[in-house]
Amino acid sequence: MSRGLLSVLLVLVAIAVSSSLAKPEKNIAKMGKRIPQTLSRGWGDQLIWAQTYEEALYWARAQNKPLMVIFHLEDCPHSASMKKVFAEDKDIQKVADEDLIVLNLVYETTDKHLSPDGQYVPRIIFVDPSMTVRADITGRYSNRMYAYEPSDIKLLLSNMQKAKKLLKTEL
Amino acid sequence: MSRGLLSVLLVLVAIAVSSSLAKPEKNIAKMGKRIPQTLSRGWGDQLIWAQTYEEALYWARAQNKPLMVIFHLEDCPHSASMKKVFAEDKDIQKVADEDLIVLNLVYETTDKHLSPDGQYVPRIIFVDPSMTVRADITGRYSNRMYAYEPSDIKLLLSNMQKAKKLLKTEL
Repeated sequence: MSRGLLSVLLVLVAIAVSSSLAKPEKNIAKMGKRIPQTLSRGWGDQLIWAQTYEEALYWARAQNKPLMVIFHLEDCPHSASMKKVFAEDKDIQKVADEDLIVLNLVYETTDKHLSPDGQYVPRIIFVDPSMTVRADITGRYSNRMYAYEPSDIKLLLSNMQKAKKLLKTEL
Repeated sequence: MSRGLLSVLLVLVAIAVSSSLAKPEKNIAKMGKRIPQTLSRGWGDQLIWAQTYEEALYWARAQNKPLMVIFHLEDCPHSASMKKVFAEDKDIQKVADEDLIVLNLVYETTDKHLSPDGQYVPRIIFVDPSMTVRADITGRYSNRMYAYEPSDIKLLLSNMQKAKKLLKTEL
């Protein structure tokens, strides 16, 4: 199979995966019929995703890059529309790929610092490699400060660039 | 595209994914050339994998099923050979699919109970839905009690069935 064709097929598969992920506990398909789950869950198949928060923090420290944590749900329409815009925006994907550690989660962690104003989705939180949650990097909604709508994609890009200016913590 | 062909392609893609995953920090491929990472990481693309330990514990409680946690590393040959046998064994896959919550991790959690005799790979730990780590369910190596070799696959299957006999904890 040629590389070109394989790439096309991979894209098709990626689309199929991202659009068909059922909630795991509801998936009662018989063996042999499921499509493998991806770590990207549709937020950018070309990015290197951390699997867990612990892993993501390790990479953030090791590579001295800020971490971007995306909280979302598979069956949330707001998450879905944000995901589509995020995955298709080349600038967003480029900065995410080159300058950030990325993690998307459908389940909350035990770290309360990741929900400064509550647990809602979609919610995007940045963490400095010094392990400080950047509660100062917010979206435009005062009642849900870390929420973004598709129309906020430029603000999100700007926030991703803001996160790159690392905190200089004094020890 | 027919379903049959798509299935074959998915299998091909799954094999490609499981065999080509580089360590994330070393993957410097340019955009557009990477193969999406899967949550299965090659341990069974047809299984429904939890992404994080917190999520897996939630499912274990919600579904009253024991959790099986597989610690492994992408570049560990012992993990790779165990993974191959695990993914290809129909009985193993069936029990894992029907009776267990499954989680595979390439990074340790903060729960020390998951490393009763140290952090090594491959290592398989069962957790009862009562949230008790089943330190009593072991392999055959006294120095690495939760390690399994490919030749131990029947013992692993037997241990998976043992985990199904839930602990009756008194409150």
